[in-house]
This record gives sequence, structure tokens and C-alpha cells, in this order.
Amino acid sequence: MLAEIITIGDELLIGQVVDTNSAFIAKQLNKIGVSVYQITSIQDDKEHILQALEDAENRVDIVICTGGLGPTKDDITKKTIAEYFNDTLVKNESVLQNIENIWKQHVRTELLQVNRDQALIPSKSKPLMNRLGTAPGMWLDKDEKVFISLPGVPYEMKALIDGEVIPGIKNKYNCPFILHKTMIVYGLGESALAARIEVWEDALPKHIKLAYLPNLGKMRLRLSTKGYDEVQLKQDVQDQINKVIPFIEKEYAGLEDEDGSVEMVIAKQLTKLGHTLAIAESCTGGAVAERFTTHSGASAFFKGGLVTYSTESKINVLKVSKADIDTFSVVSSQVAEAMAKNAQQLFQSDYAIATTGNAGPTKGDSNAEVGTVFIAIANKTEVYSQEFNFGNSRLKVINKAVNKALEMMLKEIFKN
Amino acid sequence: MLAEIITIGDELLIGQVVDTNSAFIAKQLNKIGVSVYQITSIQDDKEHILQALEDAENRVDIVICTGGLGPTKDDITKKTIAEYFNDTLVKNESVLQNIENIWKQHVRTELLQVNRDQALIPSKSKPLMNRLGTAPGMWLDKDEKVFISLPGVPYEMKALIDGEVIPGIKNKYNCPFILHKTMIVYGLGESALAARIEVWEDALPKHIKLAYLPNLGKMRLRLSTKGYDEVQLKQDVQDQINKVIPFIEKEYAGLEDEDGSVEMVIAKQLTKLGHTLAIAESCTGGAVAERFTTHSGASAFFKGGLVTYSTESKINVLKVSKADIDTFSVVSSQVAEAMAKNAQQLFQSDYAIATTGNAGPTKGDSNAEVGTVFIAIANKTEVYSQEFNFGNSRLKVINKAVNKALEMMLKEIFKN
Repeated sequence: MLAEIITIGDELLIGQVVDTNSAFIAKQLNKIGVSVYQITSIQDDKEHILQALEDAENRVDIVICTGGLGPTKDDITKKTIAEYFNDTLVKNESVLQNIENIWKQHVRTELLQVNRDQALIPSKSKPLMNRLGTAPGMWLDKDEKVFISLPGVPYEMKALIDGEVIPGIKNKYNCPFILHKTMIVYGLGESALAARIEVWEDALPKHIKLAYLPNLGKMRLRLSTKGYDEVQLKQDVQDQINKVIPFIEKEYAGLEDEDGSVEMVIAKQLTKLGHTLAIAESCTGGAVAERFTTHSGASAFFKGGLVTYSTESKINVLKVSKADIDTFSVVSSQVAEAMAKNAQQLFQSDYAIATTGNAGPTKGDSNAEVGTVFIAIANKTEVYSQEFNFGNSRLKVINKAVNKALEMMLKEIFKN
Repeated sequence: MLAEIITIGDELLIGQVVDTNSAFIAKQLNKIGVSVYQITSIQDDKEHILQALEDAENRVDIVICTGGLGPTKDDITKKTIAEYFNDTLVKNESVLQNIENIWKQHVRTELLQVNRDQALIPSKSKPLMNRLGTAPGMWLDKDEKVFISLPGVPYEMKALIDGEVIPGIKNKYNCPFILHKTMIVYGLGESALAARIEVWEDALPKHIKLAYLPNLGKMRLRLSTKGYDEVQLKQDVQDQINKVIPFIEKEYAGLEDEDGSVEMVIAKQLTKLGHTLAIAESCTGGAVAERFTTHSGASAFFKGGLVTYSTESKINVLKVSKADIDTFSVVSSQVAEAMAKNAQQLFQSDYAIATTGNAGPTKGDSNAEVGTVFIAIANKTEVYSQEFNFGNSRLKVINKAVNKALEMMLKEIFKN
């Protein structure tokens, strides 16, 4: 069962907006056994949309479009889909009802004609009711194939994927089971890792596919498989994981969480143990805290964080000693460790993470070279830190520092 | 001049990785007058890559591929491109030299054969030297068209785009000038805005294209044009902006910054005035601070931030009165305003932003409904707050709260 995702909108093609919709849709489709064959991003242009629909129809079974369903003149997806199906737009009463309800609850001004017109959908389509916005989704069957059109606003699209599209596809097709397991490996580059596990890789059974995913300071190793015997496939992948671990005993840090994040592995372990965490950040500027608080359930273990961006705030707010800063500089292991210890005390947490460094492009309050970062971890009995140099690209330095801080914390809580 | 971006990698098609490369490349191409006609994401599959290259060659002048250049067996882009060009791979001495240098500087273990093999490139190609990694970029001319292959690691790709690809394209083609200007509008929905400016929109000259970009609590209105007379085009777009402002006098908040962020507009204004900012966050968990610290230059105005996620940290660290929390609840205007005032004092800043709310999915430390958020702004003379309900999707609540906090801050610093 193959799908293609077509994301429509000039904002994607000029780089104004990053397409996050496709990854979400692909992940949800994968969970029910549908493989995404291609993702295509195109402009709000009639001829181009028609061509993309035709190409996709030739390639795959399921075509999912997002975007271009707004009430304004630049949005032309609905009309174009009607044209592709030699269809006309007709008013759908239940969609209109939904639009009127949303309008009453959230907008409260007079309902405009352009919004009423959002209830027009191709006569051959089934509406997918959008409870969060005025643009309806649409489902069109064509022989054994399905065309689905969804609004591009991410939370509206997500609600329709989960509530309507996934159940509809599961209902229509007999989908296989798809399984991905991703192993997190620290401290080995891509080629060194490949050399280390070559014997194992060459002996992998044909139905298990291996991928190397390098990412700023860590490697991920993904095993993927697909078929109808779920129990057997799970066993096969687990067997291979068990076989490869001895090759990377020291570097293997565990399986990635379902939603793909190291912070969730840490979060689950902290919650399980009833332990708490505080974070003091300088160069990472809130990004470590944000990685935890993005996920629900953070309040169970996350006591709080400090972004002490200026040197004076390290002294006044976090009570780092001015003498230490003068002696060792603000980018130093001493300051990183003091930040971690003081954050731990301030927030009365079991653990604390601290970062201090220079993300560049200029040197700022210290003489440390651009890219230098100290990361410290405090636990109940000790505090320790490591020094890194993450190069001279600001975003790279920040992201690498965040990844490394999470890695150190992961190792800390699993070290016993 | 048209381009297509082909991003190659199974991780994109299973939704494990969001494709951020395309938006970056598209933005850089736009700046030199190249329009991106389509973005295509495909798997690491030989037949699929060959087909995508052929399709792209039929559609556009410039084809840029990213991904699949690693040293491991799952990476097949280079071999496949050689096959597409009926070419063979030959060792390039300067690429090998570069690989050996990188290895010496960063890896320090023995250079492996798989990495040496990364110096093999199609004989018809010109290498694009990758100073940040071992996979070289490649440039192939075919009649009037260009094929470019780049590594998928974002910072390596970015360095090659800026250092090699953009100068190469400017050198080869006579590109037009492309201009986008994006107006930020608050407080009007998409259709209400369209109704308000309809007369103006209908009279827009043909060479200026208009797009509506709704985004959680704000609207962006983008005017785009393209041609060879840069001065005239800039004038034309500015004229249209001047004409539309009277229709949205109250709601118009200014032009978006070049890199597309409200926070940069705030950052520039604060820096210009020599004013400083502190941030105290509860439900947004560090995300407001991160929006500022992602950009370089934040240390000029950003004093620091606090993530007081737990109620006790609001009391112990931020010194919000326990009586206020007991009387008004932790999600209240009183607490939001106290957080802003105390953060301002703690960090000795001119302004402070504070957020407190319940992002869900459960109620947490207060009885406030999921989605309720209070945002407060403190300036030198006063502190004020607003209450919002952002619905019941956690990420939506967080993102809307961040956007709204930035909007309130934007209005605050431009209010005189």
C-alpha cells in the first residue's frame, strides 16, 4: 500500500515555511502499514496541481494533499480537485452547519459569504468534518484509489488525520504491519560504526532494512521491516537488536522513544523513579528546558529552569561567585558546575543540568573561543562537567550542546 | 530560471526527520532570482532516484539533490547520479586531501577505506569542497542545465549552498530579481482581512502576487514580485504596502524581518534603544526565551529568563507571594503580573514578559481550564496582563502563547 503526500502552497517553495505536515502524516501512515513513496511540494498553481495529481495517481494508491483550502483568492486546491475529477462544487449542509457553529463560538462577528462558500465541496466527495476550522477536508474514491484533501494549518490537519483519515484507510484497505526500531549510539562516527557492525549488517535478513542517521554528536541506527505477521516481525527485529548490541556495548544508549526523542527516555525514567530535574542554561538559551516542556507530563519531574544569559544574572540570580567568574571566566568548568549545583539547590531538585559557552558569532562576555561549551550535571552526591568545542556555526553549537546535555543526562540516570 | 529540490532519504518518507533543508535552499535561491518550482522527497532507491532526476530535468533548469552521500551502504545517491549521466566514479585527489585533513583534525583514528572512497566522484562532475564533512558536493553541467548533489547534514549543506552553489549559479545564469515583503497583521481572521482589503487586492498590478498566511493568532500578508528592474519592483511593492495600510491601520504591526521572525523585529528595536528584556515562563517552558536566543546578538538585550514550571519554584525562586497563589490560583492575572514584575527586578531589566497557564492535557497545579493562559508585560512604569484561551491541543497552546507574548511585546515597544 503506497501513498504520496502533496503539500500545496507558495510559502513552501519560497522557503518561508518549513513543511512539518508531511513528516506527521508519514509517521501516522506508517503506523497503519502504509508506506509513503514520495512527498511533493508544489505551488498554488492550477496546471501544476493537476499534473501532480495525475503523476501521483500513476505512482500510488493513496494521495493526500494539504493546503490551499482557505477562503481567500490565493487558495485554489478545491476548485482544481473538482476539475481533476470532472466534478462541480455543491453546498454541503452539514459542513455549513459546522462552519456556522465555529463562527458562533470563536469569531462572533457576522459570517461572511467567503466562509459560507467553504461549505462548497466536489459532489463526488465525502466531507471530513473539521471541528477546528472552517475549511473541510475531502475524501474522494476513484476505483481502488483514494484522494484526500486536507487544510494546511497543522493542528487542523492533525485532527483530521487522526480522527478521519487513518480510520478511513484502515477500513478500506488490508494494510501490512510496519515496524521501525531506532537504536541510539553515542561516541562513534558513521563509518566507524559501520566498520564495527559490518559482519552483523552483512548477515541481516533481507526483510530487515538498516539505515544510519547521523545527527550532531549522536548516531541513530534504524531497523525497519514490513509484513503481515506482526508477532514474528517484532521478534525478528528484537533478535537483530540483541545480536548487534555486543558490537557496540559501550556506545549503545538505548532505543529511541516512539516519538523519536532522547528527552522522553529521560522523562520516563525520572518519572518512574520519582526524581526531579532543574536546568540552568547560558548559551543554549532555554532550548534544553524547551525540549522537556514540549511534551506533556513534564510537570511530574521538571522543577524549573533558569536562562542566565548575562554574566550579572549568573551572579545575581544564580548566585555563582563573582570571584570564580573573574578567576576562571564565565565559560569554564567551574562556572558550569556552580550553575548546576546552585540550580539544584534553588529548585530543590534531584538532578540539574547546566550549560555555559559561546555560541558565537562574537566572543561575548568571555575570552573562550567560539564554539566552546561546558556542560555540567549535578546529582545527589556530586557534580561533574565536560568541555566541548562544537565549531563556529551558532545554530550548530546550540543544537549540539542541547544533544550533548541530553546525552550526559541520559547516561547519568542509567549509569547504575 | 526554475529549480527543483530533491531530498533523498528514507527517514523523510517515514516521518522520522522533518525536511528543513528544502526551506533553507529555497530561501537562498529566491534571493538570487531563482524560483523553486517543486520540492520532491524520495527514498534511497535507485529506480526512484533515476526517475526523479529525469522528471526534474524535464521541468526545470537547476536540480539540487540533498542526502544519500554518506559512507555507509544505505547511501546510494552518488552511484545513481553517475549511472544517470552514463558516467563512472573516479578518485579526486583534492577531495581525498580534504577528507584526510578533516580526519586528522576531528577524528584522529585511522582513516577507513569507506571514507577514502568518498573521494570517488563522477568523472564529469566538479567537486564542491565540503570543509565540514567527508562527503563532497558535486556539480554537473548538462547542456544549459545544472545538477547539484549535496550532503543531507544541514550545516554541511548550508555551507556548500552559501559558499559554492549560490555563487556558481549567479555566475552561470542571468537571474531576475525576486522580492517578497510580508506584512504582519494581528486581530483579524483570514476572511475578515480579505473582506477588509478586497478593493485594494482587486486593483493589485498583475506582476505583484498576494498570499494570505494564517498562523496561530496572527496573519501574514505576503506581496511577491519578480523581474529585472530591481529599483522599480521595490518601488511598486512599497507603493502597494502604503496603499493597503489605511485599510488595516489598527491591526498592522509592521513588516516581518528578513529571516521571518517577529522576535527579530523586537530584538532590533530593543538593541537600537539600548533596552533590556527578561522573561519568566511557566506553561511556555522556555520557548519564549529560545525564540530570542536562537538568533545571534541576543546578549545585547536579553538579561535572562526563568522557567518556573512548578508552583514551589514560582514561590521560592521568583518570589511570587504564596498568598496570591492561594487566593487567585497559579494561573491568574495576579500571578502573571507578579512573575513579570519580579523577573524584571531579579534581572534588572527594562522590560519583562511572563506567561502562566495550563497547556494540558491535564489540569496540573491549578483549576484553570486547559488552554487558559495569562500573559503579562512589565515596563518601567507599569505591568499589565491579558487572559487567553488557546484550546486543548498542548502544542497549539504553547505556540499560540509564544506568538501572543511576542505580539504583546511588539506592541509594547512600538506603542509610542
